[in-house]
Order: sequence, then C-alpha cells, then structure tokens
Amino acid sequence: MKNAFYAQSGGVTAVINSSACGVIETARKYPDKIGKVYAGQNGIIGALMENLIDTSLESDADIAALKHTPSGGFGSCRYKMKSLEANKAEYERLIEVFKAHDIGYFFYNGGGDSADTCLKVSQLSESMGYPIQAIHVPKTVDNDLPVTDNCPGFGSVAKYIAVSAMEASFDVASMAATSTKVFVLEVMGRHAGWIAAAGGLLDESIPVVILFPEVDFDEEKFLAKVDANVKKFGYCTIVVSEGTKWADGKFLAEQGTRDDFGHAQLGGAAPVVANLIKDALGYKFHWAVADYLQRAARHLASESDVEQAYALGEAAVELAMQGKNSVMPAIIRTSNNPYTWEIGMGELKDIANVEKMMPMEYISEDGFGITEECREYLQPLIEGEAYPPYKNGLPDYVVMKKEMVDRKLPTFDMDL
Amino acid sequence: MKNAFYAQSGGVTAVINSSACGVIETARKYPDKIGKVYAGQNGIIGALMENLIDTSLESDADIAALKHTPSGGFGSCRYKMKSLEANKAEYERLIEVFKAHDIGYFFYNGGGDSADTCLKVSQLSESMGYPIQAIHVPKTVDNDLPVTDNCPGFGSVAKYIAVSAMEASFDVASMAATSTKVFVLEVMGRHAGWIAAAGGLLDESIPVVILFPEVDFDEEKFLAKVDANVKKFGYCTIVVSEGTKWADGKFLAEQGTRDDFGHAQLGGAAPVVANLIKDALGYKFHWAVADYLQRAARHLASESDVEQAYALGEAAVELAMQGKNSVMPAIIRTSNNPYTWEIGMGELKDIANVEKMMPMEYISEDGFGITEECREYLQPLIEGEAYPPYKNGLPDYVVMKKEMVDRKLPTFDMDL
Repeated sequence: MKNAFYAQSGGVTAVINSSACGVIETARKYPDKIGKVYAGQNGIIGALMENLIDTSLESDADIAALKHTPSGGFGSCRYKMKSLEANKAEYERLIEVFKAHDIGYFFYNGGGDSADTCLKVSQLSESMGYPIQAIHVPKTVDNDLPVTDNCPGFGSVAKYIAVSAMEASFDVASMAATSTKVFVLEVMGRHAGWIAAAGGLLDESIPVVILFPEVDFDEEKFLAKVDANVKKFGYCTIVVSEGTKWADGKFLAEQGTRDDFGHAQLGGAAPVVANLIKDALGYKFHWAVADYLQRAARHLASESDVEQAYALGEAAVELAMQGKNSVMPAIIRTSNNPYTWEIGMGELKDIANVEKMMPMEYISEDGFGITEECREYLQPLIEGEAYPPYKNGLPDYVVMKKEMVDRKLPTFDMDL
Repeated sequence: MKNAFYAQSGGVTAVINSSACGVIETARKYPDKIGKVYAGQNGIIGALMENLIDTSLESDADIAALKHTPSGGFGSCRYKMKSLEANKAEYERLIEVFKAHDIGYFFYNGGGDSADTCLKVSQLSESMGYPIQAIHVPKTVDNDLPVTDNCPGFGSVAKYIAVSAMEASFDVASMAATSTKVFVLEVMGRHAGWIAAAGGLLDESIPVVILFPEVDFDEEKFLAKVDANVKKFGYCTIVVSEGTKWADGKFLAEQGTRDDFGHAQLGGAAPVVANLIKDALGYKFHWAVADYLQRAARHLASESDVEQAYALGEAAVELAMQGKNSVMPAIIRTSNNPYTWEIGMGELKDIANVEKMMPMEYISEDGFGITEECREYLQPLIEGEAYPPYKNGLPDYVVMKKEMVDRKLPTFDMDL
C-alpha cells in the first residue's frame, strides 16, 4: 500500500480546490490501496523542500468544503522545473522525497508546465527503479490544454466576465444619455482570447466590442466600430484582453515591469483603450480591470465547471487504481444542446508542451466578436450556478489546518 | 385622481430598480387614487423634455422583475438642476409638464441633489398654484444621506467589495510563497470611505490595509504597514478608495480629465499604490479596479439592501397616500444583532444639501482599518443573498418596453 501526493500548480482558480476535493474524497474510498494523501505546501516546492501536508488530519467536512472554496487550499506556486538536462538533481530530489514517504501516486493539478513535469517524473522514476504512477489533473483559466474539451477554471472565469460585462452594460445603458458612453473591461488571457471571448455571450441587443490577443490592434478600425455602436445604441462596452497587442507586437498593457520568468507584467490595457477613445471621439468613459477577481470569483462559479473539476480529480484517482500512468483524465463533450459530457483520458506525451489555441474561426470576420460556432462551444461552460454557503454575509470558505508531515531527509537548497 | 411621476437620478445601483418596483407595484394597489405612473426617460430630463414612459403598459411580471435587475430601468442622468435663481424656467417647465399630464405625485429616486430638487419642486408648485406632493426615495452607493440609517445601493456595493477582497485574498495567500504578495483593489467613494470600509469586514486572519479619503496618504507609514503584513502573513491585501489623497490634497488617482461638473475624473489609484510598493519593497503585485462592476453587481446583492430599496419605494407611495409632501421615507435601525429595522420619515428641508460623513471613530487609530463600532454598523448591511434568476448561464434581467406618452407641450431646449 502506497501513499499519494497531490500538488496544485500555477495560477489558482475558483475551482481547483474542487479537483483537490475529488482527489482526496476518492482516495479515502480506497483505504486498502491508498495510505495517506500528502499535499505539497505551495505546490511542487512542497515536495522538493519536503514540506508535506498530511491531509488525513483534515476533517471530512473541511475536505468537502474545498468544493466551494476558491484559491489553492494547500498553496500553489509559479515554479517551473527546468529541463531534465539542466537540473536533473531536482527531479531526483522529487523522487527521493516520494520514496522516503512511500509515495506511489503523484497527482499534479495544473496546466501545460505541470503536465510536462508529471511526464518527466513518471519517466525518471521508472529509470531510477522507484516507479511512480503520475496522473495529471487539468486546470487552467487559459483553457489551452489539448485533448480535453475545456479546462477547469475557465468556465467560471467566462461566467464571471460575461455576467460582469452584462451588468456594467446595463449600468452604462441607463446613464449614457448624459454621462458615460463607453465602458472598458480588461480581462486575463496573455496568449489567447478564450476569456475575452466570453464577452461575446451577451444578448445581441448589447453592443460589445472584443479585443483579442489573436488580432493585431487596428486603432482606426476599432474607433470606427466603437463610434458606430455609440451612435446606434447610445453606448458601447469593450472587453479587452490583457494580451492585446499593437501590430508591432508590443502589448497595449505593457507596464515596463517583468516577472521572474522575464514575462512582461501586464495590466493597464483598459485605461490605454479608454484614453484612445476619449482623445479621438470625446466620449466619457469608465474602465475596470478585473484581474484576480475573475479567477477567484467562486461566488459566481459555473456549476458545470465545479462539477467537472471534481469529476476530473475523482477520475485521476480511479485511473491510478486501474494502474494507469502518465495520463490525464479529460472532459469529452458528447452534445452541445443539451450539454452532456463524459470523462475520457489522454496520454501525457500528447499533452505536455502542446498548447491549444483558440481557433481563428471562433473570431468574427471583423475581428471584434465571436462566431456562432464559438458561442455554441462556450455557452454550456457558463451554465448553472453553484453558490457557496454564506455566513455573516460572506462566503463560508474553508482554510485547511495544514498539519505537516515529519521530515526524513536533509534539507534541499532552492533558489526561490 | 392624479397621475404619478417617477424618476431615477444620478449614478445607478444594483437595487435602484427594486425601489422602482416598490413604487410602481404599490401605486397599482391604489387604482382609485393614482392614475398612471409615468417614468422619466433618463431621469429628470425625461420630464423636462416631456419624454414620459407609460409604465402602465409594462406587464406585472416585468415590473416584478425590476426587483432583481440592476441599473436604471427607465434610464437615469447626471443632470443637476441649477438654483431657482439661476434657472427658474427649468423648474417652471417641470411643473408645466406635470400639469399637462395631470401629475400630482412626484417620486424622485436619488441622492442629495435630487432631494434638493424634490424640495424645490414642492415649494415652487405650491406658489404656482399647482401643488404637487413631492416624495424623495433615497438611493446612493455613497451612503451619505442624513436621517436614514443607510442608503439603498450601498449595502450591495459593500457586500461586493468584501466578497471580492476576500476571494482575492484567498487567491494571493495561496500564491504568495513564490509569486504575488500584494494585491490592490480600487473602490469607489470620492468623498467618503464608506465603500472602502467594507474591506474591513473580512476575518481578522486576512491582512487588509484600507486607504480612506478621510485620511491623508502617508507613504512611509503605509509602506511600513504593508511590509509588516507581508512579513507576518506572507501577503497583504490593500483596499484603496478612489478618493484617497496626498497630504497636499491631490488625488492619488488623478487622470487629468474632468467630467461635466468640473470634477476630476478618477481611476488609477490602484496602479499608483501598487507601483509605490514595488519600488520601495520590491514585492510582486497585482491590482484591480472594480469601477462600475461594484455598483452593478446585482448577482451578489445584499438581501437586506434589496428589501430596503423595495420597502422605501413602497413607503414613498404610502406616504403620498397619507397626504405627505416634501418628505423622504428612511430606514430606522432598531437593533444590530439580530438586525431589525423599520421605515421612518424625514423632512426634505433637513435632508437636502446635508451630507452625512463617515464618523472618524469608525476609522481605526492607525488610519488603515475600521473599528468595532464601524463593523457593528456595516455587518448587517451585507447580510443575506438575493440571487436573480438565471437563463442560459446569465442573469435574467428585464428590459422595459418603454412606450412613450404622447407629448402635449412645445419642445424645451436643453443644453445637454
């Protein structure tokens, strides 16, 4: 009987804890096959530094409450393991920690980078004579993993953006006669316009112009479109992706600062767009930047997203019980209307380092909206509400006790 | 039997339509005393321009749906009537329109400016020999009206800000080990910190620093507080009011543009604060600007706010039926815990041009948080959830048909 290790990776979401709940509750159903589930404190660095949380000391009620709690209940990290060649010692350390704690199952909950790590751990553990079943649990608001129909976390962001854009549009529509005529909402999505596309889900009576990272920003064409909307509808709502770029490749939002990976730190496309409109057309504007609010908004999560996140965590454990290795459970869509889906499976070799882009046929001809095909894809993902319980007017989210497992190995130096 | 006129004034809210619903549904209960309820298209300018919406042509179901629809269902405006001396013709026009359409009841739903207009209409109509019962229905997210315990619209914004700050804090807490350590949320409130104070409603285990308009921004003290929080908790959340000012009186958020009243157009305190922190302390940050999302978020409205907004609309009509004039129904708090309230009444002469400031004893000694007294005041206002119905994953908000009443008067030139 082996223990299991679960870790959360990368940016957290409104529903990644629902997957954690699925993993832990399902593991508890196999007391004769799975010992304890350890969780990495702050993701994979918890394993590297031997900071393991003993989830068996968390109550059934608290684990169940993960299903309605946003963020990473055990902590996550933005720590990308280097290539095997560049830092084999790190991978070996992981496997030593797994061995020291009798861990035979590795459930890694994240996006493309973690799928890659998962695959390497599986391969290296084999060659090191301590084989580990490594199962990847998909998660990313970026919706860019292949094989799966969609990625848990995305549906809830899409719902948040669609509802927020709708509510702000109602607001502006009622003020536009004498006041604000243009509202700009900046949304996440550095490389892909999946999240921005959610602005296209509103009723067609609401004029929304979307700026996608996939479409070079054409100032003149954009201003003409906004102006036409204001003249026709009295106002215009704009949903701009943080990843929108000028034709020369520079982000509209570039702030001049870079994160630890050297990526430009974004934020601020909305005021740039709003000021362009003010200068050219003179319309009074307001702008909002949703930032983390959009991915943390468990209060407005999509029910199908919550259910799928849970089902994928559950399926990861079931696949492990079936002896599977180097795989990822996936959502397979079986019908659009009514929306039906089932759990399938992909091989990590087909998933690691493969990015699913938004199909260009999902973007309307003028580049400022979505097509019917895109709407059919997105619509089911925002359906259903799954409200958390409330206490004193605030959501009753759970905080894990996080009792740590005793260390057995020497410390491991990491440059964080 | 006289008709009634209802208009929405100033910035709209998540629950102003709940007051509209209260007015119209209650008026429909007095078919022998109140003829039709006309609504101003885009607020008071609808009366001045004789653009009257015949609400009797809206179905009962659509009127009921106003209770769960944000924004101004009949349109609002930022149009402040000048003083009687400066533009008596405008007031006379109002009364001529009321006379032409046999309007004997004037229900004006807004903040301090509209209370003043309401009072003047009542006085002038008397002296013009066509007396009108003018009743003010309170509304403002700024929570700055006297007499009433709180203002409809505020409780829902407070709930939105508290929930959003909580969710973002959970997010950052789980990422802080290797990534974002500081999250900055910018909120409304140009003159008063009522909305920012809602950030103080979170559990004390969540480190929140609030920047109020009432407290001069002290950069050094602020940075020390943020640094201490990051060192103790691993992260820090900041809720900054758009109205926060440097000691010299300049807004942190000043964009250099002004609105039609000559007010500086704000927006951008969050990036200013975030960059100060980055420069001085080096912490990775994220920031959000909620802007209209906070006041339009009917999806997360406070139940007590929705109920009070309705009750005040209802009470306005009841007061009119009792022959009252120049008054405003108000919320009177009868107990904090459990929260109980009843409807009282104030005289417009005591309300017009009186601004209720946030008491300084509601701000903690260090200037970065709220006191227990403030928490006791705010807590009941965010309690309870009042979800709208959903359809296809989006709230099923209503749009009025807005059938117009035939005009009877010559046009009136306005400079909008």
